[in-house]
Amino acid sequence: MMLLERDLIQSSGFRNVREGGRITGFQFRLRMPSYRGMAASLIDGVAVRVGNLVDLPADVPLWTFGGRQYTLQELWKSDGVRWPLEEAAVVTVPFDGGLPQGVHELSIELRLRMSYIPLEHQPSTYRVSRAVTLAPEGGDGTFRYGVSLYSYMDDFGTVMDLETALASVADVGATGVEILGEAHVPHYPEPSTAWIDNWFTLLEKYSLEPTNYGSWIDTRLHPGRSMTVAEGAGALQRDVTLAHRLGFSFVRPKIGVVSGDLVPDPIWTESVERSLDLAHELGVIICPEIHSPTPIKHPVVDDYIALIERTGTKNFGLLIDTGIFQDRPIPLRHGETRETRPAFLDGIGVDPADFADIAQYVVFVQAKFHDINEQLEDQQIPWLPVLKALKDAGYTGYLSSEYEGERTPWRAIEQVRRQHALIRRIAGQLD
Amino acid sequence: MMLLERDLIQSSGFRNVREGGRITGFQFRLRMPSYRGMAASLIDGVAVRVGNLVDLPADVPLWTFGGRQYTLQELWKSDGVRWPLEEAAVVTVPFDGGLPQGVHELSIELRLRMSYIPLEHQPSTYRVSRAVTLAPEGGDGTFRYGVSLYSYMDDFGTVMDLETALASVADVGATGVEILGEAHVPHYPEPSTAWIDNWFTLLEKYSLEPTNYGSWIDTRLHPGRSMTVAEGAGALQRDVTLAHRLGFSFVRPKIGVVSGDLVPDPIWTESVERSLDLAHELGVIICPEIHSPTPIKHPVVDDYIALIERTGTKNFGLLIDTGIFQDRPIPLRHGETRETRPAFLDGIGVDPADFADIAQYVVFVQAKFHDINEQLEDQQIPWLPVLKALKDAGYTGYLSSEYEGERTPWRAIEQVRRQHALIRRIAGQLD
Repeated sequence: MMLLERDLIQSSGFRNVREGGRITGFQFRLRMPSYRGMAASLIDGVAVRVGNLVDLPADVPLWTFGGRQYTLQELWKSDGVRWPLEEAAVVTVPFDGGLPQGVHELSIELRLRMSYIPLEHQPSTYRVSRAVTLAPEGGDGTFRYGVSLYSYMDDFGTVMDLETALASVADVGATGVEILGEAHVPHYPEPSTAWIDNWFTLLEKYSLEPTNYGSWIDTRLHPGRSMTVAEGAGALQRDVTLAHRLGFSFVRPKIGVVSGDLVPDPIWTESVERSLDLAHELGVIICPEIHSPTPIKHPVVDDYIALIERTGTKNFGLLIDTGIFQDRPIPLRHGETRETRPAFLDGIGVDPADFADIAQYVVFVQAKFHDINEQLEDQQIPWLPVLKALKDAGYTGYLSSEYEGERTPWRAIEQVRRQHALIRRIAGQLD
Repeated sequence: MMLLERDLIQSSGFRNVREGGRITGFQFRLRMPSYRGMAASLIDGVAVRVGNLVDLPADVPLWTFGGRQYTLQELWKSDGVRWPLEEAAVVTVPFDGGLPQGVHELSIELRLRMSYIPLEHQPSTYRVSRAVTLAPEGGDGTFRYGVSLYSYMDDFGTVMDLETALASVADVGATGVEILGEAHVPHYPEPSTAWIDNWFTLLEKYSLEPTNYGSWIDTRLHPGRSMTVAEGAGALQRDVTLAHRLGFSFVRPKIGVVSGDLVPDPIWTESVERSLDLAHELGVIICPEIHSPTPIKHPVVDDYIALIERTGTKNFGLLIDTGIFQDRPIPLRHGETRETRPAFLDGIGVDPADFADIAQYVVFVQAKFHDINEQLEDQQIPWLPVLKALKDAGYTGYLSSEYEGERTPWRAIEQVRRQHALIRRIAGQLD
């Protein structure tokens, strides 16, 4: 079962449509507003408005059910065509040239005939309006675009299942998906064969490739003692193996820390070194993240690079979390004060130019962000200098969205769309 | 996949626990607050408070994972025991005699050790509080208790799938489940064999019996013309057949109306009469609902009874929607005025004593309600006189919850629990 967004107008599915290379209009998905599905002949049309650009009467948009498109007149005559509760209708709006990239205020007035309601209260009319982001395009060839399911934290398992999440990732035009093993793999670390089969089926269905797999080395696993090197290597190898089984090329171990600026537990070096042969054999690159408050110029980064230089390995690299470039504060949450929360939430503002120094070691970028408004302005991360620095330094790998803002249900879906619209627009300008 | 409620403290699963006939405490389900699942040895305990009744330190409650119960000390030593993201932990609190029936303010302080967070910010502590209703008990033997999935309107398909919904129904102690064919059966009217197999598997798993199946006779199916008798009978028989395949004994057809007080389209009589043989053969009772604004003393009801008397059928009866007894208004919604909304939303206040006149024809009761507060006071439906009238008239069938209040996500789950707590308490007092 796929889950739908609560709003009648779904973010996922809002896109321009092409016919023979020409953009002929746009489409969006609409959840059935009644508590029941119904015959499509009961639809009395949907008027559509988009800001000041589009204003069309109810009988113009086309409807798609079960993969087939109908005019309203065709629906009225139809038998057996249904708008089910569990599946959004696809509404296609003829509009030559389509909509410009970005966020649009999409308004609808939907009319349905309910036979069991007295005629004086008919048709049942639903008027809703929502700011939604057109499926992003552009910026191809500069970077690769992905999404981490981390973005859907709190939504995953409450308002999204795996397929809903993957469909949402594919719908922004991303080609890569990142997961967290202990979060998104049921019965971790031993998923069922049925689950693994379904995982690959879904990847194929949504044309997604597995990118990075997040894991943990929980150095404080048992109270009163830290982890041995053997235990650390065991944890890492368990995840390298599972990641490989699921088709991932990168594994980001989140290693327990021993200081306020995130110096990893000293067992990390040997735990990693003991795992390099396995990683090599399985074609996996282990890549700890450089994450705020750790800047690029820091002994932790130097140590990681030293390991690469010392061993000559191709199976260890750096993952950059773009949160290090944050140059404006995350707003205080309710009840929070500047004094009681970690200072790095104000942003450590690493100079994007620093990226050039370590670029040759960077294998993956998590595109961390918190809030992007309807004008596609990020409130914390300066994407133009960041993306310019990445490109100038020759980075051509993934930008994998990590939304880390407000956890209002369903908010992440729209925020990820906005981020991709923003970074693809900028990447396009860099060409 | 089962979906969890957004709150960390889940409504479903809050119940007293018995050991050898004695109530030894209570338990509740807790959603993992992190964005990842983790080894259970990383739990640093959960302090539990319930109003002024219970106040226990973090090391006292017991934890259940994968069906096995552990003390906190046992978790600390454990290897391979996990609190997964997709499955709520069951927390059991020793409390001799258990909690009294009703709504309780349940507060927790949960502590988790995150190895990747500096020690000065550890343990990660989650403090939440929620008013939740203890799984209702009592009132057995007077009525049977059920829930219609209609109650979860807007939640179903967005925050609940079928199994989550059925688990929620079972968790209030209900034994019967009501569905709407066109809402809850994917690919209606032709569900897959796999879906039907799963339906029966789930019914068995949650010890539920199918009660009433809601259907529609959409007399305005095609614009510009009404339905013929043949079409009406066809629609009804399609649903009687599917309902029977799914194990239901009652089918409520919602018939198109031709007047403001819900007089059904005249085709109803012959559509029903032509379907009585099929209903008889399949052991199904067709039962249109008496729904506000139609009172009990009304020509529509007289006509239904006349059909029964005229044909002598046992396969047609009345369904009472308790909304007819509503004696206080539903609050105005945002932007709504008394003038623009149907007058019956103020309540038509049918005298419960009227029930006695038609009791012999009533085969099913939908326990419609809108809002029950934390003191278990219903704001619209006078349950004491209603249930007394039902019992006095000899009704021993189902009370099947139809929550029809505010559609805030997840609200219905808790409201249905409150209704069952309320009606079972009253039913117990009637004994």
